Amino acid sequence: MYTLTTFRSVPSFAVGHVRDLRVRWALEEAGQPYDLRLVDFADAATPDYRREQPFGQVPVLQDGDLTLFESGAILLHLGERYPTLLPRDPAARAHVTMWTFAALNSVEPYLANLANLVAFSLDEPWAAAQRPVLEEIALKRLGQVDAWLEGRDFLAGDFSVADILMTTVVRLLDGMGYVERFDRLTAWRNRCTARPAYRKALADQVTHFTQEAAAA
Amino acid sequence: MYTLTTFRSVPSFAVGHVRDLRVRWALEEAGQPYDLRLVDFADAATPDYRREQPFGQVPVLQDGDLTLFESGAILLHLGERYPTLLPRDPAARAHVTMWTFAALNSVEPYLANLANLVAFSLDEPWAAAQRPVLEEIALKRLGQVDAWLEGRDFLAGDFSVADILMTTVVRLLDGMGYVERFDRLTAWRNRCTARPAYRKALADQVTHFTQEAAAA
Repeated sequence: MYTLTTFRSVPSFAVGHVRDLRVRWALEEAGQPYDLRLVDFADAATPDYRREQPFGQVPVLQDGDLTLFESGAILLHLGERYPTLLPRDPAARAHVTMWTFAALNSVEPYLANLANLVAFSLDEPWAAAQRPVLEEIALKRLGQVDAWLEGRDFLAGDFSVADILMTTVVRLLDGMGYVERFDRLTAWRNRCTARPAYRKALADQVTHFTQEAAAA
Repeated sequence: MYTLTTFRSVPSFAVGHVRDLRVRWALEEAGQPYDLRLVDFADAATPDYRREQPFGQVPVLQDGDLTLFESGAILLHLGERYPTLLPRDPAARAHVTMWTFAALNSVEPYLANLANLVAFSLDEPWAAAQRPVLEEIALKRLGQVDAWLEGRDFLAGDFSVADILMTTVVRLLDGMGYVERFDRLTAWRNRCTARPAYRKALADQVTHFTQEAAAA
């Protein structure tokens, strides 16, 4: 049985976007049950937690004696167990690994910079000058992924952990109208978020944080 | 024989920092020779190259029939061949994978944002307001890695691809005085950059770009 660590509660804007979603989704795809371990923000700042997760973040996954952080590493670890997440063929596996890193290093940082500006800083005096700069690079990256998806249903062969990660990355821009400028990207995103495992994982995260908020 | 794709030439500020350095270093650690394939910026924008590297970037590594982009994926791929880069034990390997993603997703984006501001945008009207914001998060991440290095020579057991990646990430702030505020981080960085494989890889990159600039 896996144990997934996430926050006990988060601000309402984060509900549905906490990165435990990536691990929940992968575990649902693999049909694996899991327990939750909950940490408060105060717990996450303690030396004990920092020895486990040096950045004070979530998720952490415990798999027997092994404790892992970084959602990318957790998903590749689960992928080694469940071929539905990561193919066995070495070349196919290398392609999925490639798109796993692409999601987290070539796309996420640029989308996160733009999403953070739009969500939190539009009233700052520097926002007007920064926004077009951040939009340009984020839209460029979205367009590059859109072009890659020409003739493809998923990023690297069949559905894989790379699609899970890239979907959650693209969702950083939900409700901002950027993704919808790209037809193939939008169709792929909709294909991924229509999966029952995604819907179950998202519903479970939302339920968890909503219940914690109601109990607080 | 491996074939490593990099740019034919780059602006002088990028010499010594192009990401092919990560792959060169790993190949030197593994004692593996490689050929270079050179692309111009114009080549990198062509549909043919984008089918290979959808973001128009370098490095790309060709290993027989397999063509890989994303330095993190390339280094994990090489690690599967050479235990000096990635341990065989599954738990030890998972820890290295974790720190590989930590370098590229939990640290690099924040250091890159600060490095880009300091290198390119200090004269912008928004720079004065942005700099302390970007410094705070970058210094926080550096401090978290510094704390992790307490009692450790390397990020995850012996020297590995995680140290290669994190070293090149930390080098984004070279010459800016931030890293040197952290004793363990500085000692670890110096331990990594003292390795003969690093020195050879860096010298080879600098020689390549310097010769191309002289020939242009």
